[in-house]
Amino acid sequence: MGWFENSLMARKGVAGGAAGAKHAITIADQGAFHYVYGPYADPVIEVEPGAVVSVETHDAFEGKITKESDVPSQILNFPFLNPQTGPIFVKGAEKGDALAVRILSIRPRGPQPVGTTCLIPEFGGLVGTGNTAMLNAPLPEKVKKIRVDEQGVYWSDTLTLPYEPFIGTIGTSPEIEAISSLQPDYYGGNMDLPDVGPGAIIYLPVNKAGGYLYLGDCHAIQGDGELCGVALEMPATVELQVDLIKGHGNAWPQLETEEAMMFIGSARPLEDASRIAYRELVRWVAAETGQSEADAYMLLTMCGKVRLGNMVDPKYSVGASIAKKYLK
Amino acid sequence: MGWFENSLMARKGVAGGAAGAKHAITIADQGAFHYVYGPYADPVIEVEPGAVVSVETHDAFEGKITKESDVPSQILNFPFLNPQTGPIFVKGAEKGDALAVRILSIRPRGPQPVGTTCLIPEFGGLVGTGNTAMLNAPLPEKVKKIRVDEQGVYWSDTLTLPYEPFIGTIGTSPEIEAISSLQPDYYGGNMDLPDVGPGAIIYLPVNKAGGYLYLGDCHAIQGDGELCGVALEMPATVELQVDLIKGHGNAWPQLETEEAMMFIGSARPLEDASRIAYRELVRWVAAETGQSEADAYMLLTMCGKVRLGNMVDPKYSVGASIAKKYLK
Amino acid sequence: MGWFENSLMARKGVAGGAAGAKHAITIADQGAFHYVYGPYADPVIEVEPGAVVSVETHDAFEGKITKESDVPSQILNFPFLNPQTGPIFVKGAEKGDALAVRILSIRPRGPQPVGTTCLIPEFGGLVGTGNTAMLNAPLPEKVKKIRVDEQGVYWSDTLTLPYEPFIGTIGTSPEIEAISSLQPDYYGGNMDLPDVGPGAIIYLPVNKAGGYLYLGDCHAIQGDGELCGVALEMPATVELQVDLIKGHGNAWPQLETEEAMMFIGSARPLEDASRIAYRELVRWVAAETGQSEADAYMLLTMCGKVRLGNMVDPKYSVGASIAKKYLK
Amino acid sequence: MGWFENSLMARKGVAGGAAGAKHAITIADQGAFHYVYGPYADPVIEVEPGAVVSVETHDAFEGKITKESDVPSQILNFPFLNPQTGPIFVKGAEKGDALAVRILSIRPRGPQPVGTTCLIPEFGGLVGTGNTAMLNAPLPEKVKKIRVDEQGVYWSDTLTLPYEPFIGTIGTSPEIEAISSLQPDYYGGNMDLPDVGPGAIIYLPVNKAGGYLYLGDCHAIQGDGELCGVALEMPATVELQVDLIKGHGNAWPQLETEEAMMFIGSARPLEDASRIAYRELVRWVAAETGQSEADAYMLLTMCGKVRLGNMVDPKYSVGASIAKKYLK
Repeated sequence: MGWFENSLMARKGVAGGAAGAKHAITIADQGAFHYVYGPYADPVIEVEPGAVVSVETHDAFEGKITKESDVPSQILNFPFLNPQTGPIFVKGAEKGDALAVRILSIRPRGPQPVGTTCLIPEFGGLVGTGNTAMLNAPLPEKVKKIRVDEQGVYWSDTLTLPYEPFIGTIGTSPEIEAISSLQPDYYGGNMDLPDVGPGAIIYLPVNKAGGYLYLGDCHAIQGDGELCGVALEMPATVELQVDLIKGHGNAWPQLETEEAMMFIGSARPLEDASRIAYRELVRWVAAETGQSEADAYMLLTMCGKVRLGNMVDPKYSVGASIAKKYLK
Repeated sequence: MGWFENSLMARKGVAGGAAGAKHAITIADQGAFHYVYGPYADPVIEVEPGAVVSVETHDAFEGKITKESDVPSQILNFPFLNPQTGPIFVKGAEKGDALAVRILSIRPRGPQPVGTTCLIPEFGGLVGTGNTAMLNAPLPEKVKKIRVDEQGVYWSDTLTLPYEPFIGTIGTSPEIEAISSLQPDYYGGNMDLPDVGPGAIIYLPVNKAGGYLYLGDCHAIQGDGELCGVALEMPATVELQVDLIKGHGNAWPQLETEEAMMFIGSARPLEDASRIAYRELVRWVAAETGQSEADAYMLLTMCGKVRLGNMVDPKYSVGASIAKKYLK
Repeated sequence: MGWFENSLMARKGVAGGAAGAKHAITIADQGAFHYVYGPYADPVIEVEPGAVVSVETHDAFEGKITKESDVPSQILNFPFLNPQTGPIFVKGAEKGDALAVRILSIRPRGPQPVGTTCLIPEFGGLVGTGNTAMLNAPLPEKVKKIRVDEQGVYWSDTLTLPYEPFIGTIGTSPEIEAISSLQPDYYGGNMDLPDVGPGAIIYLPVNKAGGYLYLGDCHAIQGDGELCGVALEMPATVELQVDLIKGHGNAWPQLETEEAMMFIGSARPLEDASRIAYRELVRWVAAETGQSEADAYMLLTMCGKVRLGNMVDPKYSVGASIAKKYLK
Repeated sequence: MGWFENSLMARKGVAGGAAGAKHAITIADQGAFHYVYGPYADPVIEVEPGAVVSVETHDAFEGKITKESDVPSQILNFPFLNPQTGPIFVKGAEKGDALAVRILSIRPRGPQPVGTTCLIPEFGGLVGTGNTAMLNAPLPEKVKKIRVDEQGVYWSDTLTLPYEPFIGTIGTSPEIEAISSLQPDYYGGNMDLPDVGPGAIIYLPVNKAGGYLYLGDCHAIQGDGELCGVALEMPATVELQVDLIKGHGNAWPQLETEEAMMFIGSARPLEDASRIAYRELVRWVAAETGQSEADAYMLLTMCGKVRLGNMVDPKYSVGASIAKKYLK
């Protein structure tokens, strides 16, 4: 029996971790894409807990950057960026529950070179931006189109990077807000955290009936921080298994893998993102192991792990985790 | 002739600064209040540029904290906080324009003690919060009800503070986002900047047709930073004169008084809010005076002024200004 | 009787606010200048509480930028920047006391144009720096030499700014650290706060015997934030009256004027500087007025004032103050 | 041939990576410990490049917390914290060079339980501090003494954590500053980065003749961020091989292991620490591989790794690295 049978999803999910009906959302099914995480859109599909859904996603540029001579600032039209598929309505989901989303696979979709990365003016970790407002001239724009398949990312003739795909943007709807899909927050969104890849389960807080699951922005590979503002962006086909945990009550996204349990915080400055993630983890470890909060705090000063998602979005994202083997 | 005749509003407004038709929005007219700044609500009223509008606002607690023994955390129901009157649709307003909103008067409304301040758990400048997540226990909750009239704020038997009213939350709608009225941003919102008071004109970027002007959250007096998380909150009647400047193109709110021109930035950390405000001001001074950006930058290192709005909201707000007499 | 007779300095100082012996430190007396605030230097002079000291200071560039064609990065030699006069040993000063330093006058010193401002690569509020590390190219360097006298600052043929001098850098020595004079901190240092001008009294924590008072870096005028990284720098002659308050115990610099009492915090990010200043002020107001800390916190949410010193130094500085008339 | 023969140390060191004379510094040899990184102390030993030095270090509490009933705030006497062994004078080292320090071994030293962790008031990642100044009451103080040997860290009867030792504080002297050993900065210091362990080589900028190498503060194990403010602190015996690279010119610490090359930045807020580390790495990758800075920036957006050292010291520390196999 694998670890999945002992996951929160399998133990607490309404469907008990069992795979249910199969669904698909193609680009054509989706029709209009969404640029906000919000409750004002109509669900593209309605599913029962346990549903297995195959989802076609656009890349963050909606496929508009097609060649290396393209100039991003002439093509991209803020705020119509980072198009999202969904929302998926999960039956029975109510405020206070969590959607459990198991990522089964992520495959690149479309003609080669399928991957795109670029430098966009006033965007990125080592340049002035709209918030960290500077008078310096922006860096020159630049586009790289890169061949990607499930065996590798072909950066250059001499260097092949591994294919390490994940979902850059995934989350539920806020209750009354509709927030740009460029931003991560308490409901998920544009966290750009490489851990959100095949094999992982993400537990997303439900803020409104049906949960309203959105996703998009798959990455073929990404370093910690998504340094230049974008990763290796690609259109993809994502296969998900969606379950529902009643009353799970997590205030921020939680992520489970075979080895570890993680919480994900998003905020500025970056220490606040880390504080959010670690506070959730301290409290979860204390509850899970029966230790006091003070002891859990001290245990994590020994063995907590931090993963930087992005340091470039409107909020920065950090995952704080503990190895499951230390939960005793 | 007063300074108003030389204001941007009078010189560039569609109505040329002339007062037009009178309108009123009472609490009853408004009916349901709004808790987000967004385009998904229906306008409560539609006006021509020049309109003079009398608006009744709730306090930030929607009047639910009525006595000093109330416990805020038992009464307040996130995200249904900071109720906003509006939206007001301004005819002819299109993306890229600015609404010019002249504040004519702000009067407290309702039975005494009309003012409320309080300590709310995990909210305020000197306590851990949802973002600056701490393990420390919150401060005890506390409510103070304070008598306010247009002559003063009666803090105690021995101390009367001046009545220095302003609008804590005012702004236009984002194009596709709907953002909590607790947050300030590029469209205005919960800036909590004491300069937004009678006599001032605020220029708010238009992001969607009609502008969609919202307001609420009047304060009888507030210190810089809104230190404990709320000011002296009061229900109010606000009188506004609303004009429209075509193609004004400001990316962030701009504020004009007899003496000074200001830009308002909102971001975290606080230095980013200051950078936004100052960059807008540098560029405006350069354009206005014909100096180079470098010279405007150096001039402001001599005589720029900074006003801290809030250091407690989801984003912090800062106004950077220059005295008009130095614009030569 | 003026306000000074009721100041902390006059009421609590060892010399009771009385002016004592006169001393002078000229550039020649000083000999070698200091670039750190530390205990490892020998005092240039030893004085009794009450001493009136006339001090000649260099400008922050040690007078090396003499003409507008100078290139700062070729002239300035880090870490030998911001030369300080002192240290002045105050007899009787011990750890836990405070030096009370009353600023009597600040006059420009030397040939015209006596004022210098400039753009230095990777330095300033609206550019990438050594800490806020960017890949953008720096702005071009630029020097402006400006005529200054006690009647005004002659920015251009058409614009004269007021002469509003203050001491940019003043403080005591840390106990065992020696910290660059470019940095402000708990002992004072490079706060660049315009309130530190003639008429004000600054109370500086004593960390080692004798206090070791250093000063330098006078400014003819400066905007809030010292936006481009430097103010209008000038060599000056400063007249100070130095007293000693035994056991005053302030952890951070405190400043008193006729109207207000202020505390000064220095940290990054800017909200932390504000938090430090405001927490000191909350506690002082509570102690001074007999109110609870919670009440003082709420009073300051009504009437606290914030002054931004610098947002460009290794730490940022903020003063938080209350009008004395509200202390009842 | 192992990777060490191809390290920067072996290829560029004055001693060419060869082990030279053996030296030892015992607690008795050291005598007085140091609490600042500065040039004002006398070297405890003078060595040639290539020297192998065995160093006894105190724990961060100088061994004063001996039992779980101890109360840290009654024992610890700021600023006399985090005692450092050294300085070691390396012959031939001049400003602009780098010391190459290879960590050969770290062994716990002294009677069991040799490890100490604790909660100290106003210190730690999830509590208010002297900088992030709060009004909340501090958490209760708490001490845990933990048995440690080279096989494990005996957290509880049921949980043994791995022994993963490293040097919490190591660095050279600034040129004229003397900075608390609690702080990390451009010269190293209290980085608390778990990568600084056996097998790694750290390249520390030389700011003054002889370099003045200090070290202390060994940790038996630590999670990312050193969450509660301290790790598992222990007295240790550290064996180092010290070489010298002339003209290496790194502005910030650089670290090499078999697999990766890292730069370490320290600043607040945390994004600035990341920016420093990543900018150094971008420039180094560009120089090393012949790619443009823009290409190196894009490569690191694919495969850069970030390790959080501490988020609790006066500055926070972050290491940014690239796998050596991607350097082609």
